[in-house]
Amino acid sequence: MKSNISYQESIEILNSLQIQPKSIEKILFSQALGRILAEDIIAQENMPKYPTSAMDGYAFNSEDIDLLFSSGLKLLSINKAGESEEQICQKGGCIKTFTGAKMPKNCDTLILVEEAKEEGGKVFGLTGVQIQKGKWIRAVGENYSKGEILLKKGGQISPFEVGLLAELNRVFVCVYLKPRIAILSGGDEIIEVGESKRENTIRSVNNHLIQALCNSMGVEGRIYPLLTDNKSQIKNQVKEALRECDILITTGGASKGDFDYTQEVIKEVCEIQFKGVRMKPGKPVGFGISKEGQYIFSLPGFPNSCAVTFMLFVRIVLEKMLRRNSALEPIKAKLTQSIKRTDSRMEFRICNLRVQNGIYEVGFWDKKTLQSSVVNNFCSTSALMILQENGTDIQEGEMVDILHLDSLIKL
Amino acid sequence: MKSNISYQESIEILNSLQIQPKSIEKILFSQALGRILAEDIIAQENMPKYPTSAMDGYAFNSEDIDLLFSSGLKLLSINKAGESEEQICQKGGCIKTFTGAKMPKNCDTLILVEEAKEEGGKVFGLTGVQIQKGKWIRAVGENYSKGEILLKKGGQISPFEVGLLAELNRVFVCVYLKPRIAILSGGDEIIEVGESKRENTIRSVNNHLIQALCNSMGVEGRIYPLLTDNKSQIKNQVKEALRECDILITTGGASKGDFDYTQEVIKEVCEIQFKGVRMKPGKPVGFGISKEGQYIFSLPGFPNSCAVTFMLFVRIVLEKMLRRNSALEPIKAKLTQSIKRTDSRMEFRICNLRVQNGIYEVGFWDKKTLQSSVVNNFCSTSALMILQENGTDIQEGEMVDILHLDSLIKL
Repeated sequence: MKSNISYQESIEILNSLQIQPKSIEKILFSQALGRILAEDIIAQENMPKYPTSAMDGYAFNSEDIDLLFSSGLKLLSINKAGESEEQICQKGGCIKTFTGAKMPKNCDTLILVEEAKEEGGKVFGLTGVQIQKGKWIRAVGENYSKGEILLKKGGQISPFEVGLLAELNRVFVCVYLKPRIAILSGGDEIIEVGESKRENTIRSVNNHLIQALCNSMGVEGRIYPLLTDNKSQIKNQVKEALRECDILITTGGASKGDFDYTQEVIKEVCEIQFKGVRMKPGKPVGFGISKEGQYIFSLPGFPNSCAVTFMLFVRIVLEKMLRRNSALEPIKAKLTQSIKRTDSRMEFRICNLRVQNGIYEVGFWDKKTLQSSVVNNFCSTSALMILQENGTDIQEGEMVDILHLDSLIKL
Repeated sequence: MKSNISYQESIEILNSLQIQPKSIEKILFSQALGRILAEDIIAQENMPKYPTSAMDGYAFNSEDIDLLFSSGLKLLSINKAGESEEQICQKGGCIKTFTGAKMPKNCDTLILVEEAKEEGGKVFGLTGVQIQKGKWIRAVGENYSKGEILLKKGGQISPFEVGLLAELNRVFVCVYLKPRIAILSGGDEIIEVGESKRENTIRSVNNHLIQALCNSMGVEGRIYPLLTDNKSQIKNQVKEALRECDILITTGGASKGDFDYTQEVIKEVCEIQFKGVRMKPGKPVGFGISKEGQYIFSLPGFPNSCAVTFMLFVRIVLEKMLRRNSALEPIKAKLTQSIKRTDSRMEFRICNLRVQNGIYEVGFWDKKTLQSSVVNNFCSTSALMILQENGTDIQEGEMVDILHLDSLIKL
């Protein structure tokens, strides 16, 4: 068991995990938003299948361009999108062809409706209009060709992929199963939301916070009954949860108080990979793997520390189980006020984020004391500022690394 | 009716809409993720309510600091979080006090467990430890005070707000109702997903694409049966939809083909605010308001144009109805390849986005032809590059304005 390690080392441990894909389920394409494809999606035919008009116009043969601008082309018929009969054009004629319609036989050129006029059953090109053979005609396979891999196994399904699956007539798609997450929290001082308040107690925040963080990442979290400061009750709950989950998250009981039995129980059911990271907030965070290969996180009890460690640590394993990209992508932002460092630990400081002239700016303009108990510091315009271990003070105007919360979870 | 207006003007029309809040519903706090508060959330009591220990330690009175480091303080009792009995400390004594516990009476100072040793029923401060009165004790109201507005009406509920609502014991919260969205699309050439393919037809993409875009913004969209090229059928569908929706979205039939009855019908049921915007893609986009105040969008039929105009236009009205921030926030990104402009229109070009050393970079490294029919150009690592009207070529390495798709919809 590694303890009091650097943030970097803890992340390397998580990144190096070889997480096997969960099994696969087949779901309706229109219910697959946010899910991860467990198969390649391959084009079954060329798109478009035929040369297709990209605009409303008159289709004709390029050999007749001169005629179009002199004595005109005879308007033979109308060719709208979706017609099943094939239209055939004769020399000296043209066919009015609408957007999305298959180009008539013998036609390789289109003049747009607004570039022509109809008169006495004939169509004339307007003076000055330049005709280019093939322009406004979508070539066969221009969008994609038969056999082409359009969506790769492991890709996430966004609204655009839903649209593409519709186009491909893929009613059902194979996606990876979502991991099952168990949320355990408590302590004798914790009472549930809605419960009558007793003296010297606090409301349960973390179980709801973690569930909401899970939801915002597109997965469900199951909240178990609150733990009491009773080792055998904790043990039973943990064992039950481990029978039913892929990831177990506990909060509180992670520092070394005499009544923190959760840590004792966790040590008994898994091999601890690390416990204690030199960071603020989140120092007591721990991570282990059960004999059956489940991932167990013990997050600190203060709500802010709990949220930050969820986003930095649990998120990585969750993304990996979801087969999504789990890499953190810090971006640069301009600091609007100077920062004094008082702690040598690496720090993830909640800050405000705004865009000014296309550039990210960060500061602390509506943040309270930076204590980890203060859950109301977070909001949807927050970001996490990364302050390195043993770092020096930073001056207003300097660029700092931040983590956009949107890149961590979906707000 | 304004037509062929600039993008800027069209956005101003949408931004200036005075959209009344939808009515309000009361929902469970844990099901409120992503919703907008229709009430201020006010603290009912101080947090913390009492001076509270922020760490595990020994509580004592600061007058006894010298004693602590000489003959020691008598360990009187143990004070764990959640205990209902008030602990009282005597002069010369100390009480072991755990994180989250109410500070004992007569105690204003804490020495951390790791800074002290217990011996023979007494507690001694370790040599070299500096004690600071009040440190590690959370003061009354430090987090928030009774009567303080913690969440403002109009704010969006992220996972952090769910946590705060739990802490405040707010089981039910008032949020704004979601708008109802009707999705109408079709044309004789369109066949539904799963339907047997006929010659010269294409699958219905836009209704599913729009529904998924709505879903990704946290709202539902109702898909109506496909429209045929029959004016009275279109009229009936539009009328039915208008009885049941707040926003009506039609796609296709927006250019001026002879069979585009959708536009005719829309003109009859609403006052068109604009039709046609000098932009690429999306030129035929239209927007109107019905007599009953419903918002009607006609989006172009090509899937990419449909998606882009949804994100640029429909999104604004949707966000406004949801009482969320609807402002666009372009950010700067470095161009990795030069761009030749061939069109004088303002352009929203789909590009790839990546982060390199904390800086956004954009290019077209896996994009196909930039035609608006190509729905497979979009993916979750895409962004929209903004190219201004009558703009000149742009060189590799220059900074361009982009719209992060995450800032438009949630991918």
